[in-house]
Formats: sequence, C-alpha cells, structure tokens
Amino acid sequence: MDNNLQDMDQILETSEEKIFSLLEEKKYFRCRDELLKFNEVDIAEILTDVMEEYDMQRAVILFRTLPKDISVEVFSNLDVDDQVEIINIITDPEIRYIIDELDFDDKIDVLEELPANLVDKILERTPKNERHQINTFLMYKDYSAGSLMTPDYINLRKNMTRQEALDHIRDVGMDSETIYTMYVLDSGRKLVGVCSLRSLVLADENTRISDIMREDVIYAHVDDDQEETSELFKKYGFIALPVVDNERRLVGIITFDDILDVIEEENTEDMERMGGVIDNDDKDYLDTPVLGHVKARLPWLFLLMCSYLITGGMIARFEDQLSAVIALVSYMPMLMGTGGNSGTQSSTVIITGMATGALEFSDLPKVIWKEFRIGIIIGICVSLMNYFRIVIFENNSSLVALTVCCSMTLIVVIAKMVGGVLPMIAKKLGIDPALIAGPLMASITDMVALGTYFTMARFFLHI
Amino acid sequence: MDNNLQDMDQILETSEEKIFSLLEEKKYFRCRDELLKFNEVDIAEILTDVMEEYDMQRAVILFRTLPKDISVEVFSNLDVDDQVEIINIITDPEIRYIIDELDFDDKIDVLEELPANLVDKILERTPKNERHQINTFLMYKDYSAGSLMTPDYINLRKNMTRQEALDHIRDVGMDSETIYTMYVLDSGRKLVGVCSLRSLVLADENTRISDIMREDVIYAHVDDDQEETSELFKKYGFIALPVVDNERRLVGIITFDDILDVIEEENTEDMERMGGVIDNDDKDYLDTPVLGHVKARLPWLFLLMCSYLITGGMIARFEDQLSAVIALVSYMPMLMGTGGNSGTQSSTVIITGMATGALEFSDLPKVIWKEFRIGIIIGICVSLMNYFRIVIFENNSSLVALTVCCSMTLIVVIAKMVGGVLPMIAKKLGIDPALIAGPLMASITDMVALGTYFTMARFFLHI
Repeated sequence: MDNNLQDMDQILETSEEKIFSLLEEKKYFRCRDELLKFNEVDIAEILTDVMEEYDMQRAVILFRTLPKDISVEVFSNLDVDDQVEIINIITDPEIRYIIDELDFDDKIDVLEELPANLVDKILERTPKNERHQINTFLMYKDYSAGSLMTPDYINLRKNMTRQEALDHIRDVGMDSETIYTMYVLDSGRKLVGVCSLRSLVLADENTRISDIMREDVIYAHVDDDQEETSELFKKYGFIALPVVDNERRLVGIITFDDILDVIEEENTEDMERMGGVIDNDDKDYLDTPVLGHVKARLPWLFLLMCSYLITGGMIARFEDQLSAVIALVSYMPMLMGTGGNSGTQSSTVIITGMATGALEFSDLPKVIWKEFRIGIIIGICVSLMNYFRIVIFENNSSLVALTVCCSMTLIVVIAKMVGGVLPMIAKKLGIDPALIAGPLMASITDMVALGTYFTMARFFLHI
Repeated sequence: MDNNLQDMDQILETSEEKIFSLLEEKKYFRCRDELLKFNEVDIAEILTDVMEEYDMQRAVILFRTLPKDISVEVFSNLDVDDQVEIINIITDPEIRYIIDELDFDDKIDVLEELPANLVDKILERTPKNERHQINTFLMYKDYSAGSLMTPDYINLRKNMTRQEALDHIRDVGMDSETIYTMYVLDSGRKLVGVCSLRSLVLADENTRISDIMREDVIYAHVDDDQEETSELFKKYGFIALPVVDNERRLVGIITFDDILDVIEEENTEDMERMGGVIDNDDKDYLDTPVLGHVKARLPWLFLLMCSYLITGGMIARFEDQLSAVIALVSYMPMLMGTGGNSGTQSSTVIITGMATGALEFSDLPKVIWKEFRIGIIIGICVSLMNYFRIVIFENNSSLVALTVCCSMTLIVVIAKMVGGVLPMIAKKLGIDPALIAGPLMASITDMVALGTYFTMARFFLHI
C-alpha cells in the first residue's frame, strides 16, 4: 500500500475509534459531526462496522442523526442485508422518504429483498405510473441488462435548440452520471441518437440537437446478459449505455458505476469456477453459513472423486507390475502434478486470451500448433533435468529414468495441447471455459499422465 | 450470445467482407464510406483485420482516406504495435497532426513505444511547455497512477461565478470524459475542491464555485499503484480521479475508461498467477513467440519440480511398506488430488473475499474456525462415501479402508485450513495471494496428503 490510500485508511481507523468511544458515551451528535467529515461511501462503511461491533439499534440511532439527503446516499451504499435490517427498525415515514429519494436502480434492488407485505405497503403510496414502472423493472431477469438499468435518463427531441435542451435538463436534472449522455427519441420513443452534455455545453447558441447528435448509437437489449453488456462498456469506454426493447424503444440506461460492480462479480465468478467453487449467491464469506460453503464446494469434490475412481482403477490393474519395480511409484506424483500444472497453464493463457478478445475459435489450429511446440520445448527441458537427477542422485537404473523422462515429455505435450483446446471448445459449446481450467483439467491430465507412464513402463521395462 | 451483440457482430462481419472485396478492387473511397458507418472503435478493429489479412500498406492507404478528426480517434484505438507501424509509413506532417491531436495520455503511450530519434523529431516541433510536460509524464513508473493520468483537466477557482466557469469550460473545452468533473485549485495549484459539470449546469445564475464545490476530495498520489487506484474507482464509482504530488498539487486526472483497462489487466494477471504463468508483457497470445511462452511457464514448473523431489523422497522412504500393501498406492492420486482441490477451493474463496474487501487480516481467526468446520463436514462426507466403495466394491480390507478414510478426513481439514490461511498471510506480507492459490497450493497439499497417509498407514496397518 502506498502513502495516500494508507493515509486514508489510517484517518478512517482513528476516526472510527473516536466514533466508537463517543458511542460508548452515547454522544450521538458528536458522532454525527465526526461522521460527516467523510464521503457517504465511507460513512456507510463505518456504520457497517458499528452494526458488527455494537448492535443494530445503536447503528440506526446514528443513521437517524444524519441529515436526510446524506442518509439516503449512505443507505444506498450499505449492503442489502443491512438495508433491510434498517428498514425493519425505522418508522414508515422514514422508509417512505428513503425509498422515494433513492435512485431508481437502488430502489429496485431494495424492493427485491424486502418481504412482500412491506413492498405492497410502499407501493400503495407510490404514484401510479411509477408503481407500474417499478413492477416492470422487478420482472427483469437477474443478470440481464434489464436488471441493471435505471429509467432516470434524459431524453431530447431532434429539433430542440441548445437552450431548450439545457432548460429541459435543468427542469428534470438528475443524478450525476445519468445527465452526461442524453438520448434522442422519435415520437414513438425509438432511440435515434445520443448527445453528450459536453457537446451541448460547447455548442453555439443556435445549434439544434440534430446537428450535434451521433446517430450510430451503440446499445444493449433488455435481455442481453450482463457479461456481454460489460464487454460493450470495456470496448467503447462509455459512461452510460442505452437499453432498448424489441422495437428499439429506449427503456432505460446502464451507468458505468453499476458495470464496475458487474465486472467485479464476473471476475469473482471466473476465479471461483477455476478454483472449483460453485457461485455463492454473492454473499460475503463471513455471512455465508458453514453449510452454505459446504454446498458450494462438495459437488465438485464428489464429481472429481469419480475421476479418481478411474485413476485408482488404472493403478490397481497395474499393481503387480508396480510392486515389481516399486521405484516407479515415487515418480507418480511428479508426473501427474507436472501434467496438471502444464495443462492449467495453457488453459489459463487461452481463457484470458479469449476474455480480452485476442483469441477466437478460428484460431484453434494456430493454438494447437503453438502449444505443441511449447510442450516439446518445456517437456524436453524438464525431462533432461530429471534424467540426470534420477540416474546420478537417486541411483536408479537408466531404464527407469528413460521411462520417467519419455513419459514426462509426452505428458507435457499432451497436457499443453489439451489445456489449449478444451477451453476453446467449451466456449464454442456455450460452457464457461473457467469450469474447464480448474480441477477438471487436473483430473484429465492425471489420467493422461498415468496412462502414458504405464505404457512407457511396459515398453522400456518389459513388465 | 444474445441478439443485440450478435447482430452487431454480424453486421460488422458482413461489412468487413464487403470492405475486403472492395479492397481487392482497390476501391478505397467506397471502402471508406463503408467504414464511416461504424464507431471509431469498430473502424480500428476492421483496420487491424485488414493489416492481418492483407498488408500494412493497404491498411495505411485506407487509414489515410479517413477524415482527419476520425483518423486520430481510430489511431488511438489501435494496438501500440500497429500504431508504431503506421507511424513508420506515413509522412512527417501526418505524424505531427496525429500526435498533436491525440489525447495527452494516448500521446504518452505512443511516444513511449517509438524509437528515440523519432521521439526527438516530434518533440522538436512541440511547444516548449508541452515538451516539458511530455518529458515529465514519460518518467512516471509503469503501473503507477502517474503513468495513467492525463494533464487535460479543467481547473477552476473558488471565486468564479457560474457564468465565468461555463465560459472558461467553453474556452478550453476538452475531451468528453475530462470535462464532467472540474477541479478547484488555490493559487499554489493545491487541490481544494471538486465540482461536477452537472452541479454547474443545474446551479442558479449567481452561484459561485465555492458554493457548489465539494471539499472532501478523494484523490490518488502519482506513485500509487494502479491496482489501488482502481480500487478507489470501484469503491466510489467516480468518472475521474484527481492525482496529486507530494505537496498535494494537482498534476493530472485519471478517467474511468483507462481504469477499465487496468481492471482487465489486473484480472488477467491474477488469473495467470493462479494458473502458474508469469505475466506476459501484455502481449497477445498469438503475437508472443513460442520461446516467450516457454519463458512465462517454465520457471513455475521448475520450481514445483523441487516440491516433487520432496514428495518423491517421501514415497521412496516408504517404498518397502508400500510394496507390502501395494493396494495403498492406488489411493494416492485420490488423496493428493482431493487435498489439492480442497485447498484451492478455500484459497480461491478467501482471495476473492479479500479482493472485494469483505475479508481483512483481522478476520483470520474467524476464517480458521470456519474452514475447520467446513473441512470436518466435507472430509467426513467424502470419507464415508469412500469407505463403502473400498470395502464393498473393491473388496479391500477394512483396515485399508480405515487408513484411507481417516487420512482423507484429516487431509481435507488441513488443506482447507492451509488454503484459508496462506493467502491471508501472503497478502499481509505483501505477496500477491494469487501466487499462492495456484500450483503452490497443490504442492503443499501433496506433501500434507502423503505425510498424513503414510502416518495413518503405519498406525492402522502396523507396517
């Protein structure tokens, strides 16, 4: 960690200690003054710590001392679980104020988690057209572009003048991110162009929207997967992306800060799949009960157990030969391990290559040829090193050494090629390649390793 | 893939075919018209394909037909290698135009890759103060906040009125992202506040900057690591982040689109490290020569070889006992594999937990206790299943089964705890935890597995 971030962490920590000791003395208003020195994101973090270290009641008292506008911002930065707990404690008018003031997308997130009777009570008091909108948004599939979007965008007409547009913005003026790109709709609400606040501010007095708007709009569809949507953001570097329905009518926009969360989620998912863990409902490690963790991990371990039935069976059938040359056993972990690692290396490189768009399925022959050559070179290097070790330091027969080394070269070459090919085929078939690169790769290469090893042993040692 | 993205890909592909056939007929201007239907990001992609399928010359001819303002945008979206190749072909005035018009941060990226004599030639014609700035920026360390920033920001003074500020913006009016957050500096260029274009546009006529600016500015330091900087973006959801020097003077800003690239880079790096691959200079898979790939992969395999010396040695010392009960050998892959997978699962979950900020070093005792319980449950489930398999289906003695199953439970528990603890300690020591979670975890659990297995065998089978 470097100076600035560390500084900020330290300031936060000292302030938190101060707040905690003020809380002990129940000096809530001095606590509040201390809190208000921070950004809303940090205040939310401190409140979460208060909930953990003390109790919910005290956190809610503190939350209530905050100025109303700030309390909404802080609320929207809390975890959904904590939001629901707060809502269960505060009064109805307070709930209504917070729900009213929340950004639309945050509102939807909170409503999704609340018990149905509470949602009904909130919706009762909501104006009819907003209630309709909320109901529509609650129905978009999880992980779809629709579930990420907010309807709080600014729409313009082609024939508006610069001044008319600026006045319109000032009338509806919304959230900071959602104001910077404005969407031009025709009379049927179809998306016909985009216009940035920048070009509007920089334009001459008499400019019309049609003069400065871009017509080649990049957009997502409500049903698009969130991962594809985040690819669009990465590719074009947008601040916001419009989302349209089947008739190309604008239904909402997605802003880049929500995409940052999606990117983080997708990364976590990839890493977890590679590590052989089933996605954990986005709950934090400590919040997930032990059985939840077991549920996320046991299936893979069971599945892989089947692969060990096969490797175990291979060894059992070869038992007599192995007991004849028991020295062969001691090289098994090395051959299986190196095979697994070689395969994982290849699939990791291929998966990251596909993720950044540098590799496509049509590159498959090139990948095979490249992995073949990489495998040959690495295989020979590793084998040579082992040959001398086995013959010189471990005093084993050169025939054993030959068996181990020829197997090693072959295993590395096969593992590299399998590791390169499998993720590409998986992606082509619509399976997440990260599911392949993890434990599954190790199981496959285990079998390859043993098969090769025993074949070589028969050949060289005539057993 | 869903409809919209697929649609766009298809449109791109058909257009590309059309462009290619027009290129064959050397109809460059009709090519250009076809190209201009797309976003600059897509035009850059098509040009890259032209370079790959045809030759550089033809791509450059096509590039030159583009309108000047668009050609600069397209240029900034090309890979650095391709940029350098283009620069080597086009004329000096063209180079100067492009370099002049590029955003400052893109300019720095290109200049870093050009041969020194070309850089000198370009800098010769650059105004003195910009030359000075370029030289300063060229010196920031790679992967530091300084290396990501651009000096093209808008700075205001506290006592400016709304109108003065808007006029100032219109005078200097820059890039779309850099205009939305403006920075308030004092007379010593120290950063005293931020102000969004939104609040300026929405403010009343007579507002002064000091009325609408926020003073609790979150900023990065020029020497901060890019990963920490991207954490700030994720945490606060900014469009741009100011970067200051040791005296808290504003030296530049980082915009969110550059951070999207950083996040992608960091993810790739994490995945590669977990997969046992050394970072590959950010070059694409196909562009890296075979020996480059070997260099990225061989070190890890060599290093891990040492761990196999240890496991191999353990087996060699136990050889006599193993040949007495050769059935024990067939369960070795299962025990080692399950140990490795269990450990990797835990470390994956811990690493992603730490990355999202949900886990800190102070949670270590909680993690140990949780992993212990998870390990017990999973260990017992897996062992029970194996006990029946070994006794009933494989007809091995119940003592062998007992040996395997007690080992299995212990191995899973130890692996889970090691897998949970190691990444946290690594992070505390400043080592990237992803380096631990991959092949290294498998090697450690291999040793744990064999050690446990042989001890249990001695105990139950008295060998």
